[in-house]
Amino acid sequence: MNFVEKKILEEGRVEGEDILKVDSFLNHQIDVEFLNEIGKRFKELFKDQKVDKILTVEASGIAIACICAQYFNVPVVFAKKMDSKNLDKETYESEVYSFTKAKHYTIKISKRYLGRGENVLFIDDFLANGRAALGIKNIVDQAGANLVGIGIVIEKGFQEGRAILDDLGINLHSLAIIEKMEKGKISFKSL
Amino acid sequence: MNFVEKKILEEGRVEGEDILKVDSFLNHQIDVEFLNEIGKRFKELFKDQKVDKILTVEASGIAIACICAQYFNVPVVFAKKMDSKNLDKETYESEVYSFTKAKHYTIKISKRYLGRGENVLFIDDFLANGRAALGIKNIVDQAGANLVGIGIVIEKGFQEGRAILDDLGINLHSLAIIEKMEKGKISFKSL
Repeated sequence: MNFVEKKILEEGRVEGEDILKVDSFLNHQIDVEFLNEIGKRFKELFKDQKVDKILTVEASGIAIACICAQYFNVPVVFAKKMDSKNLDKETYESEVYSFTKAKHYTIKISKRYLGRGENVLFIDDFLANGRAALGIKNIVDQAGANLVGIGIVIEKGFQEGRAILDDLGINLHSLAIIEKMEKGKISFKSL
Repeated sequence: MNFVEKKILEEGRVEGEDILKVDSFLNHQIDVEFLNEIGKRFKELFKDQKVDKILTVEASGIAIACICAQYFNVPVVFAKKMDSKNLDKETYESEVYSFTKAKHYTIKISKRYLGRGENVLFIDDFLANGRAALGIKNIVDQAGANLVGIGIVIEKGFQEGRAILDDLGINLHSLAIIEKMEKGKISFKSL
């Protein structure tokens, strides 16, 4: 069992059939030391990739992306989900469907901060149905940049995200893949 | 001139009378090395305070708070602004008025992650009218925790935030205080 699986078993809480709450360390309260371990691990996993920039989506991806960026020595750009009066007019945009919230939202990145030929690593907390990752892939394509990989902390292996990203030939690494959550008991797929 | 003032002059863009855009390094693209300098500086400024936890507000405060937390060896908790299906039912809440967006929003922190007697440092990117800081102060008071200080990267010194927080006796440090922005030219108050 790796350090991410261990943390999930120790601190995660299962609610209902498919909600895993990790808000004690990942997306409300943040265990910064744990994120540093994640940063080291992603650096190992993507050591053969040239990475110029790390992308993520607000809000829960920001902490992970920023701590990870320290191991790659690159800047972070986070896609905006919320309306922001201060965002540039010139943006790359993609519409994303959230199954959790059962609605569409638009993610946006200013054209100033993503350029042709840049090598981009997308980092996020969860992969489930893969829609946020597809939205980022779409924005990276619009910019003429290269998506060199996707690093996910927790993948819901019983949902379709991985199959969709595999079909696109995307280099995907998850640090923990949940096989099932039955009656509050979590089991993992081997990595 | 300190490193924050220098960065603002080099990379900030003034739009209209009172909008300072710092999205190339602070709140859209993020210069993680620069944030590390900020973390070191806040650690110096608050070296006499016992800090158990750093609080911030999503989304733009998260990056700064997490990098800073590495210098204090404490966890971060970020207040949620967006509706989140996954947030606990039991929350501390405060209503905040945003002058930038001209609307009220509610910030929430789960009661699990803020406790009686905890010593809290609030970190944020901007201080203008002080409403987000007041919202956090209100939540900290509800929890019976102690607000030991507020660390701000950029203060708009021509707005009322500081006066309001001074009246409450709050220990406030800003790394750059803008005196005025006239015709695109930024001048700073001495710290």
